[in-house]
Amino acid sequence: MVRSLLLVGVGFMGGSLTLALRKRGFGGEILGVDLSQEAIAKGIERGAIDRGWTSLEEVDDWDVDMVVIATPVRTFRRIGEDLKGFVRKDTVVTDLGSVKGRLVEDLERILGKTFVGGHPIAGTEKSGVQNSNPDLFEGKKVIITPTGRTDREAVEKVRGMWEETGAVVEFMDAHLHDWVFGAVSHLPHAVAFALIDAIIEMSGEFDLFRYPGAGFKDFTRIAASDPVMWRDIFLENRENTLRAIDIYISSLKKLRGLIKEEKIDQLTAFLEEVKDRRMNLE
Amino acid sequence: MVRSLLLVGVGFMGGSLTLALRKRGFGGEILGVDLSQEAIAKGIERGAIDRGWTSLEEVDDWDVDMVVIATPVRTFRRIGEDLKGFVRKDTVVTDLGSVKGRLVEDLERILGKTFVGGHPIAGTEKSGVQNSNPDLFEGKKVIITPTGRTDREAVEKVRGMWEETGAVVEFMDAHLHDWVFGAVSHLPHAVAFALIDAIIEMSGEFDLFRYPGAGFKDFTRIAASDPVMWRDIFLENRENTLRAIDIYISSLKKLRGLIKEEKIDQLTAFLEEVKDRRMNLE
Repeated sequence: MVRSLLLVGVGFMGGSLTLALRKRGFGGEILGVDLSQEAIAKGIERGAIDRGWTSLEEVDDWDVDMVVIATPVRTFRRIGEDLKGFVRKDTVVTDLGSVKGRLVEDLERILGKTFVGGHPIAGTEKSGVQNSNPDLFEGKKVIITPTGRTDREAVEKVRGMWEETGAVVEFMDAHLHDWVFGAVSHLPHAVAFALIDAIIEMSGEFDLFRYPGAGFKDFTRIAASDPVMWRDIFLENRENTLRAIDIYISSLKKLRGLIKEEKIDQLTAFLEEVKDRRMNLE
Repeated sequence: MVRSLLLVGVGFMGGSLTLALRKRGFGGEILGVDLSQEAIAKGIERGAIDRGWTSLEEVDDWDVDMVVIATPVRTFRRIGEDLKGFVRKDTVVTDLGSVKGRLVEDLERILGKTFVGGHPIAGTEKSGVQNSNPDLFEGKKVIITPTGRTDREAVEKVRGMWEETGAVVEFMDAHLHDWVFGAVSHLPHAVAFALIDAIIEMSGEFDLFRYPGAGFKDFTRIAASDPVMWRDIFLENRENTLRAIDIYISSLKKLRGLIKEEKIDQLTAFLEEVKDRRMNLE
């Protein structure tokens, strides 16, 4: 059982996690570290943390059972190095990052066998601890990526924490994770960001954003996601994202070709297959 | 005032229009024609039409004030030719098609000055008259595309009909319409269809559709739209759609390049601009 927790990065995702634990009866102390004093103040106001500081150096109580890293993924290695000097030997360190792969390897090298990679498949385009939602993880998948060296007890503590929030835990290899989420999450975000960019390009003298019709808002909502978080995800999962974008461009060119050549039957078949696959998700 | 109406194509959009008119007190008779006997039965059951037939030839009462064409856009010219032999000289003919441009020119040539092009900017991925929604157009834009030759009284009748449903009418040149909606509607649909196709391509031995995380469902909902309707839209608005896809591919390649070259500052700026533009829509 985890009795105390340190959240590094007091934002929407981390705040949703600690609020979820509180709601389910977690009684231990929740500490927070964030570069922004405002985030700490809002985190305390929202009830997501009890106390907080703007740097790890200032934390006055390192007798914590669990550290949760909830910052943009490119900061993880440095935070890992910093944490190494402070945490107890048996403190479990986990994260909420959308990229695992090499990052998990590096953090394991830095922090040892008590590091457990995690990725909750939840979230919205919202950011900021003030928007945190204690029910965010209810029924959602959380991917945990232990390696052959990860401490089993540490894994069970992370699993237990997530099950407390109502999430469904699934184990996956860290590199497979990056391929899968490169395809189903990082690619769709790239696609949505590029769509808004294209509409900006096409707007010129006529403001196309005045006509956000039927589906456009839903479709582009994820383009309002946090820029720094997504910059880090794209760079950290660079190879998988680039590969997915290339395959995507091929699909788009295939569709383009069917329209250009007016291949009525093949175009219908293409759209029917896509509809069938999408309908199966509901 | 319109006292009687013939709906050609008894589906989600047409049914939503007639249900909206009924809800606001339209007391006249609503006739329906659809190739599918099942659609007619469902339309009567749903209250969207009073009586219906599977062909225009069977309609037993042509004393209708308004004909609304609500079929896939590539059928409009043939339906226009068929209607010509039946409608009164002063019957107004309008449509719900997502493409206007040359289609409006052709229908005006076929039907004369009482044809008024229309396009309600509403709808979902749903289809079928059984899913029709009388509140679909409430507060939504409807684009009307009269030409220099369109009868003013016909335009006012169409405008009046839409205002009855709670929609906000806006006039636009038919060709400008196709450029605008090629960008903000037809392009996003192409982008979403291609995304599902790419995920199918990438699935191979590992079923990626098992991980429809954070935003994926919202983002791809429009990919479940009616295939025949969208095939027709893409083919009918072919040039604008192809041009928009090309500009889109440029945007995606720009983003791809920033990730590939790890241009941290430019990538952040790209994502920030996109987020700002998207946020302005809310």
